[in-house]
Order: sequence, then C-alpha cells, then structure tokens
Amino acid sequence: MAKDFPTREENYAQWYNDLVIKADLAENSAVRGSMVIKPYGYAIWEKMQATLDKMFKDSGHVNAYFPLFIPKSFFSKEASHVEGFAKECAVVTHYRLKNSPDGKGVVVDEDAKLEEELIVRPTSETIIWDTYRNWIQSYRDLPILVNQWANVVRWEMRTRLFLRTAEFLWQEGHTAHATKEEAIEETLKILDIYAKFAEEWMAVPVLKGVKSPNERFAGAVDTYCIEALMQDGKALQAGTSHFLGQNFAKAFDVKFLSKENKLEYVWATSWGVSTRLMGALIMAHSDDNGLVLPPKLAPVQVVIVPIYRKLEQLEQISEVALKVKEKLEKLGISVKYDDRDTFKPGWKFSEYEFKGVPVRLAIGPRDLENNTVEVARRDTLEKEVLQLEDIDTKVKNLLDQIQKKLYYKAQSFRDDNTTAVDTWDEFRDVIENKGGFVLAHWDGTPETEEKIKEETKATIRTIPLDTKKESGKCIYTGKTSTQRVIFARAY
Amino acid sequence: MAKDFPTREENYAQWYNDLVIKADLAENSAVRGSMVIKPYGYAIWEKMQATLDKMFKDSGHVNAYFPLFIPKSFFSKEASHVEGFAKECAVVTHYRLKNSPDGKGVVVDEDAKLEEELIVRPTSETIIWDTYRNWIQSYRDLPILVNQWANVVRWEMRTRLFLRTAEFLWQEGHTAHATKEEAIEETLKILDIYAKFAEEWMAVPVLKGVKSPNERFAGAVDTYCIEALMQDGKALQAGTSHFLGQNFAKAFDVKFLSKENKLEYVWATSWGVSTRLMGALIMAHSDDNGLVLPPKLAPVQVVIVPIYRKLEQLEQISEVALKVKEKLEKLGISVKYDDRDTFKPGWKFSEYEFKGVPVRLAIGPRDLENNTVEVARRDTLEKEVLQLEDIDTKVKNLLDQIQKKLYYKAQSFRDDNTTAVDTWDEFRDVIENKGGFVLAHWDGTPETEEKIKEETKATIRTIPLDTKKESGKCIYTGKTSTQRVIFARAY
Repeated sequence: MAKDFPTREENYAQWYNDLVIKADLAENSAVRGSMVIKPYGYAIWEKMQATLDKMFKDSGHVNAYFPLFIPKSFFSKEASHVEGFAKECAVVTHYRLKNSPDGKGVVVDEDAKLEEELIVRPTSETIIWDTYRNWIQSYRDLPILVNQWANVVRWEMRTRLFLRTAEFLWQEGHTAHATKEEAIEETLKILDIYAKFAEEWMAVPVLKGVKSPNERFAGAVDTYCIEALMQDGKALQAGTSHFLGQNFAKAFDVKFLSKENKLEYVWATSWGVSTRLMGALIMAHSDDNGLVLPPKLAPVQVVIVPIYRKLEQLEQISEVALKVKEKLEKLGISVKYDDRDTFKPGWKFSEYEFKGVPVRLAIGPRDLENNTVEVARRDTLEKEVLQLEDIDTKVKNLLDQIQKKLYYKAQSFRDDNTTAVDTWDEFRDVIENKGGFVLAHWDGTPETEEKIKEETKATIRTIPLDTKKESGKCIYTGKTSTQRVIFARAY
Repeated sequence: MAKDFPTREENYAQWYNDLVIKADLAENSAVRGSMVIKPYGYAIWEKMQATLDKMFKDSGHVNAYFPLFIPKSFFSKEASHVEGFAKECAVVTHYRLKNSPDGKGVVVDEDAKLEEELIVRPTSETIIWDTYRNWIQSYRDLPILVNQWANVVRWEMRTRLFLRTAEFLWQEGHTAHATKEEAIEETLKILDIYAKFAEEWMAVPVLKGVKSPNERFAGAVDTYCIEALMQDGKALQAGTSHFLGQNFAKAFDVKFLSKENKLEYVWATSWGVSTRLMGALIMAHSDDNGLVLPPKLAPVQVVIVPIYRKLEQLEQISEVALKVKEKLEKLGISVKYDDRDTFKPGWKFSEYEFKGVPVRLAIGPRDLENNTVEVARRDTLEKEVLQLEDIDTKVKNLLDQIQKKLYYKAQSFRDDNTTAVDTWDEFRDVIENKGGFVLAHWDGTPETEEKIKEETKATIRTIPLDTKKESGKCIYTGKTSTQRVIFARAY
C-alpha cells in the first residue's frame, strides 16, 4: 500500500497532517475544528487512558462526572478565569428546533430561548467548585481527590488534528485541600505522574517546570508543566498541573471548619492532559516511512505475516504462527496474525510499517524447514532471522529494547537541540536557524517576555524545576537574572 | 449514620430520589436537568462500562469518537429522525462571550454568531453516517463495527436522576453492513449482549422483544429492546438495538460496490445503553435499608470492620484482617478494610449497609480467640459466625450465591407481577391496581395503542420475541390478534 506523503524535511506540517490521516488515526469532520478519532487512533488513546487512570487511582484519586454545560454567570465569578476563556466559548442559547416555515428543514425555535445561556465547558473549575461548596463542611471532608474523563470545547480559530481542536478529549483532576502545603504537594505529585507517563510509556523525555505569568492558566497561582521537544525543533506543552490557591474557593465561597475550629477557604489544584498527547506521540518518533509507536502504547505490538504460495503451505505456517501467537499472548503481548488472502505479504509489510507496529514476524516455507522466523523492528527497520526456540522471550526483550531505544533517541535529539545562549544575537540566530530549546537569562518581567515573543515568536516554555541558580544578564534587557529559562517556538 | 428516608411503600419516587442522593451516587447540579455523578455512583458506572466494553470487543467491535456538535442541516436529512429529536435539542448559536457593557459579568458576543447553528448531539446517527460516506467504497470496507462512549443531550422537561436527565452518558454502536440479513443479525446479537449483561451482571431479568411503531426509534425500521420491571410495578426500557435499514445510507448517500459490482446502499444498525442502567440497577434490588448491589457491579464487594476498645486490640485484629484481605484479593475480590478510628463500628455497619456493600466481615477480640469472623450479607441482612479457615473460598461462594439470589428474587417478583388479561375491564383493573407487565391481545394498530395510552397511561413495552403465537381478540377493539404483547406503565 503506497502511502504517498511528504518527508519531514520537505514539509513537516504537511507530513504530520498526512500521517495522521493516512495512518487512520483521525480526520477532520463536517464540524469546523472538530475531529473524528478513528478506531486505530482511539485504540492508542484508550491505552493512554487506561495507564493514566491506573496511576491516578493508585495515588488515591477517584473518578466522577460533572455537567457538560456551565451557566454563563459562573464564568464571571473568577475574574482572570473568564478573561482567559470568554473568547473561545461555544454558547447554547436555545433548547428546541421547529419546522422551517418554508417547509425546508428546521430552524431554531425562538420561543425556546434559555433565560441564562449555557457555556459548553472549556474546563470545569467553575461548575466543580460550585458543587464542592455542598460537599465540604469540615476538614474531615478533605482532601477531595477527583478526576473526570470528559470532552471539552474551546473555539480555536486555527486547528490541527490532535494538537489543537475545537473539541478535544481529556482528563481534568480537581482536588480540594485543607492546607496550602498539601495542595502544592498534590500539584507536584501529579506533575511527576505526567512526567513518568510521558517518559516511560510515550518514550518522550520532558522538562518539568513552572510557567511564566504570561503562560499561566487563567485562574491559577502557579502553573506547572511538562514540556517536550518535537522533531521540527518546536516545543509542545504536554500536560499542566495548576496550583489554584484559594481563588476558586473564594469565587464560589467554599469554606471549611478546620481542626482548630476556624472557618477557612479551601485550597485547590487542577490538572489535565488531553488528546494533544496523541500529537506529541506521533510527532516525537515517527519518520518518513510512517508512524513509529512505542511498544507500551501500540494497539498491536507484534504482527505475524505468513509468506506462502500454495494453500497447504499456509496451513503449515498457520500452525506454527498460531503457536507463536499464543506464547506471546501469554506474556501479555498483543499480537495480530494477518492471514488474509486478499492482500499480498509486500502490501501487508508496508501497511504495518506505515502504521507503526513495533515488531513484525514473517514465516515462510524456508522458516518451517529451518525452524526460524524473520523478525523486523519498525524503529530501525532492521531485520534478522531468529531460531523459533524461546521466541516469546526474545520478542519480549526486543519490545523492551525498542521502548528504551525510542526514549534515548528522543533524549539525544533533545540534548542536541538544547542550546545555551548569552546574547540577543545568538538567541535570535538559534531560534531562527536551529530551533529547539534555548536556555537563556530573562529579567523576570512579562513585558520582556512579550517583546521577545513579538520579535522572534519564541516564548518561555518553562522555568525548569531542577536547574541550578546561576546569575547572569537578561538577553533582551541586560538586567540581572538568577536562573536560565527555556525559550522556544511552540505548538 | 442515620439515613432518614421514606420506605418504598410510603413514597416510591421519593425513596428512589433520596436513596440516589444519600448513598452518594448522584445529585442534581446547578444546570437544570443535568446531574453530577458522584465518585461512588461513577465507580459502579465504570464497572458497567468495563464489562460492556469487553463484551463489545470480544464480539469484534472497536471504539472511536465522533464530534459532540452536529450541523443543524444534518438533522433534516432523515425525515422521521428530525421529527423525533428536533423538540429536545440544545442549540449552539454563538462562539464567543465578551465583557458586558455595564461592566458586570459577560454577555454573548453577537458578532460571533455561527452561520449554521450546531446541535449538541442527542444521538450520533447523522454525523456518523456523514462520516461513513467517506469510509465506505466497496464491500471490502464492510462491515464497520464501531462503538463510542460519549455524553449526549436531550432537553427533557421532567428529569429524574439517572432515569431521565438532559445530559447523560452512554455508549452508541453504529454498524454498517453489506446485506440486510447481516444487519438484522447484528441488531439481535447486540440485543443478546444487552440481555446477558442485564441478567448476569445487573441481576435484572429482562424481556427481549421488538417495539411497536409508536415506540420505535426515530429513523429505525425496527427497534428491539430489553425491558425490565421495577419494584413499583413500572417497566423500564434498559437498552435498545435498532435495525435502521437503508434509511441513513439513503439520507447521507452512502453506497458501496458489491461483490457483484453493483452500487448499493449500505445497511445500518445502531444500539445503546446509558446511565439509565444505573437507575434500573438501583431500583431493581434496593430496599428500605438502602442500596443493594449485585456483587459483580459493587465497587467494594467486601468490607472488613474491626471491633475493638483498645489500640493494641486493633493491632492484633488488623494483622488478621489484612491477611484475610490479601487472600480475598488474590481471588479477584475487591476489599476495603475500614480501620478509621474517627467512626464507631455501629456507624460503619449502617453506612456500608446503606451503600449496599454485598458482604461485611467483622472481627473482634472474641473472634481472635476463636479463630472466627462474623459474616453479614447485605441482601438478606443475615449474619453468621464462620471459622477463618478457607474464608476466601467461603466468601467467594457467598458472593456468587448473593448474585444468583438477587436475580432469582427479581425474577420471581416479575413472574408474580406479570398478568395475562382478556378483557378491557380486567386490563384497566390490573394496570390501575396491581401494575406490572400485562399480557394482552392488541389489534396491531398505532391508533389503538394511542387510545389505550390516553385512557390508562399504559403503553406497549415490547412485543416479546419468544412468545408463542396465539390467536385472540384485541382487549380494546375486539379485532383479531395473533400474539399477546406486553403492556405496562413505564419510566
């Protein structure tokens, strides 16, 4: 199956878009900015969900579900929150259609106008904190460690499959705590979970840090984030964890009686990752031959293809192949045996290569004679012929190896594309010509960040948590600085 | 913990509503008709989801995700579909808010009016068949066996937690087939899955049948359903599976090239169950002491409560309790050990009883001496003291026994409340005074069904699949009939 699409070199944006569509991950829908997530793409998302959900539950969180709609007035209660989201809200104004007077189709029934408009949630802090007011009376009701898996809508003007869509799927955690310290601890605990997931499952190395005020979530005191680097040298924010202070508790009047019998406002966090992770996953590893998936998130980890001319050969091969399949499945490996006779082996090879199946086994008549199997790995495209003996542990080890290799490859790419600069000329040169993460001193003001953005399109992606203090001078203003921050152009 | 709420006898509707709220399953939200599903309720829904999802996948289905919004014009394409849903649609008309001119809060920005209004999906046939047009060219692309887990909105005027809410969660399957026979087979296969789930997991016996034209899904050729009986003698439709014929293929122009090289319209099915199942589950088994949950869907299957006065007793008891917990968990049983010292055993007993935990184990100092444990079952409220030896298998057997017992109890209730009648007077009497399922002859016309509904509020719940043909006379018109159908008042 020929998958005619541009190389990364030729046109990275087009390469990404074509890959998503041609690998059957997602496509644009009839609704502007909304995508259809196709079964193969959704199967990857389900694996992400299952893994994250377990991590959340293992750390004491439970799931719940809050309404899709939020009364308009709720948004105004937290000033910076409404400022951040008002411009991208889908608004429900009516609740009924009626037959068109001209007999053609339906029109909105003006008699069914809502007294107060409803907003399709862009995020759920407001409706959830309005609910928490009734759930929380005393310190005994705390902490509340709730997560929800949901769809949200943000009316984006320029959309790209997975990376930025009007509707997207995500999880949003909303926790309530008795103390500031506990809430901050929760924020960082989640940041660690996100980083662990990105690195160990997605094989994408990330920087953990805190956002500058310009990039902070609307309504947060501090926004922590994990930041990844894509192959075109642009940064991608892969997850955020917000310390909300008492902002939402104050906006929605949520108080609790402390152990000391004092009435206090509750402390909050919220945190989320979305189907945007799919974009990060696809862009981090894939190549000009198609998708490359880390084994831990691949819906099919191993595909077995029989090579035969006559039907009786297929029977013999199938016998061996199904035994291999069974052995692999016993080790928890997901295997597909593709014995369809409507497609030729060559077509199947390129199909599974394009779709990023990590390991392909091929068994032909000669393999039957020699008790061998041809093993091909997607990441390096290397092939070797192995003895069938212990094939299950050999394949399992290979999958582990591929998982690690993808991570190290991405890490070494990031290292090669992280540059420390000390002057404004150097900064502009690197941002313009090399790309990647740029470590530079910044005077700490939003105004400087804004000006740098205007001139170079680069923003502060994160103020890393684990960088050592180092005095220097702001690349733009020359004012003193105590730490380098990470600049980059970003998705 | 006192849970003051009416008995079923006193006020069934209030009993249900209070139970849902006080057992922490769900509550009403600030948005009219939309509920908040609380963590305990959501944990039950997650078990339902996981079970059904596996059943769908085991029968060859895959998940995908389609947009929340549907262009208004799509609805008009299938005539009876729009007729059925136009009156309960939430309509998005704008995509931006702005600051109110008076400086108080935000208002809809009239400059951000959509050219074509978007409908929040009440069901997804239209957007999905619009998508399938591009997925299907030849018979090789068929069948498509897709399911989606999603939220939908139907603007109901009278809502009740779980049973009828403006927004609800559900799964909707949408399949595409090359032949009518295959589509009908799929419709019935799903009906069987739904019935199996209801009976074996929910412990709720259901009747499988087909709906009369009045109760058919808007756009379907035939609607199959599973129908359950609640303790107040009212019926509840628990799931539907629709044979859609070629209606949506024709409305959205979805054709395929058959093996015989002819261009033909595609055959369709759709099917769904929703959070309404939560209502059925709660109403089918619970009693005046609170929730009763079948073990297979209980988030916590066994709770262990230590009985102690002094802290050193607790230590000794905990040692035994944690061993028991571990043994039970090895058998796949979910166990909670509640050693909180902020609540007394009596409070815990009534709390778990109210929340429907199937089995409670209590361990006190005397049990330590005698190597025993007190085992209480929620369904019958019976208690017995058992030797600790083999406690894991004993508890496992008990859970199996409770699961079966709940089913048989519900089945015998249904049998007792299914009445065959032959005259109009009998019919009215049973509907009015006894309730339950009423087996009666009907002349097969929508007009008669409508009149019976007007006079008695009873509708035809289902035309059972497995009833034998039997000639008789319609209870209302006296015209001839070939089969009894099931009438009832319904949720």
